[in-house]
Amino acid sequence: MQSDSLRVVLVAPRNPLNIGAAARAMSNFGFLRLRVVNPYEIAYAEAKSAVNAAALLENSEQYSTVADAIADCTLVVGTTAVGHRQLQHSLRRLEYGARLIRQELDVGRVALLFGTEKFGLSNEDMARCHWLMRIPTRSEHESMNLGQAVAVCLYELIRSSQVETDAPKAQRSATAENVDRIADLLVDSLQRSGYIKDLTSESGEQKTRRMVRRLQLTRSDALALLGMLRQILWKLKNP
Amino acid sequence: MQSDSLRVVLVAPRNPLNIGAAARAMSNFGFLRLRVVNPYEIAYAEAKSAVNAAALLENSEQYSTVADAIADCTLVVGTTAVGHRQLQHSLRRLEYGARLIRQELDVGRVALLFGTEKFGLSNEDMARCHWLMRIPTRSEHESMNLGQAVAVCLYELIRSSQVETDAPKAQRSATAENVDRIADLLVDSLQRSGYIKDLTSESGEQKTRRMVRRLQLTRSDALALLGMLRQILWKLKNP
Repeated sequence: MQSDSLRVVLVAPRNPLNIGAAARAMSNFGFLRLRVVNPYEIAYAEAKSAVNAAALLENSEQYSTVADAIADCTLVVGTTAVGHRQLQHSLRRLEYGARLIRQELDVGRVALLFGTEKFGLSNEDMARCHWLMRIPTRSEHESMNLGQAVAVCLYELIRSSQVETDAPKAQRSATAENVDRIADLLVDSLQRSGYIKDLTSESGEQKTRRMVRRLQLTRSDALALLGMLRQILWKLKNP
Repeated sequence: MQSDSLRVVLVAPRNPLNIGAAARAMSNFGFLRLRVVNPYEIAYAEAKSAVNAAALLENSEQYSTVADAIADCTLVVGTTAVGHRQLQHSLRRLEYGARLIRQELDVGRVALLFGTEKFGLSNEDMARCHWLMRIPTRSEHESMNLGQAVAVCLYELIRSSQVETDAPKAQRSATAENVDRIADLLVDSLQRSGYIKDLTSESGEQKTRRMVRRLQLTRSDALALLGMLRQILWKLKNP
């Protein structure tokens, strides 16, 4: 995916903290091209001068109209919090919309529009979009904070569906021999401590051995556990 | 998934805006149980009294230690921004970790820990976690804003991988008959206007017909376009 082909477009943002938060999320996820349309000037200036301002804020481009900000883009997507608005536009959930955006980023340039904090995108702004995209918030509380909405949308763009099913890097497991040794030591300790009452109790011993196997010990944990149990058993034998 | 079984645990949060933002994202995505450990008291009070404070902030529970805040949970997951720390814990990417959390939420109770804004979770806090989870930010700028990190993690928990490949609700497409009529009218208009020079130009006509088919018109757009072209053609015939 060509991250550099995405333009995040904030339309008339009002709050410097939101502008800064949007820029930070962009930097976190590697989308560095911010466009700001008709911002509240003081907020924009304040966001730019904040101590932790992402470098990309300094490189952000300012436009006075949405039309100008999206003119060089081949796909224009608007974000909206509203799930069931009387929309004249097709509305896609983020999971699916992001897939279409990724595809377009490989061949064209995409503008992703976020509206003003209180009211979102205007009908006029929406009419300039090819389609609208919605983060699947619950209907009782649909509207997201601007900075958080930007973060979630960009995360969906970079998330890897491969990783979803990947197991973490395998750790070296304990050998069966060491697992048996651990079980031996534990059973011995349990008998000496009186937990397993009858020295010949088959069922207590077998339960303990099965439990030790279920632990799925790593190699290094098994070695540590062997040492611990040896010491405990020694103390049990030499009170 | 049992959303009600998740406990979002903010450890020593310092900034009321971040506490509020975390609560808002929780409400957006339907996770309503917030626990706060040893917060900066003034920030916590301020967040609770904010005008837009989510109702769940009022119901949030305060603890003085992490141990108490996670005592009733069957899985404890810590979040970290650091990808390659000398970690004694297994580290999972969000996409995979969220899958494990969803599974556990159906049978147990999960604590999801977020550390303090500046330093994240302490080593002591991490030692209480079964494993750690990382949002896949880029290495040049790993650390996320707290409220945004909460939003992204919770979004991953509720996102639907089904939707990723679902097409949007199919719109009724134009009939082949109407597509042909449109092509007829367009070809006629183009010949009358001089765009297709030769009245018998096979190639110009065929190119135009293929283009009209590629438009994949909806039923209603086709009807509108038919009306437009009829009017244009009428005017061309009656200048």
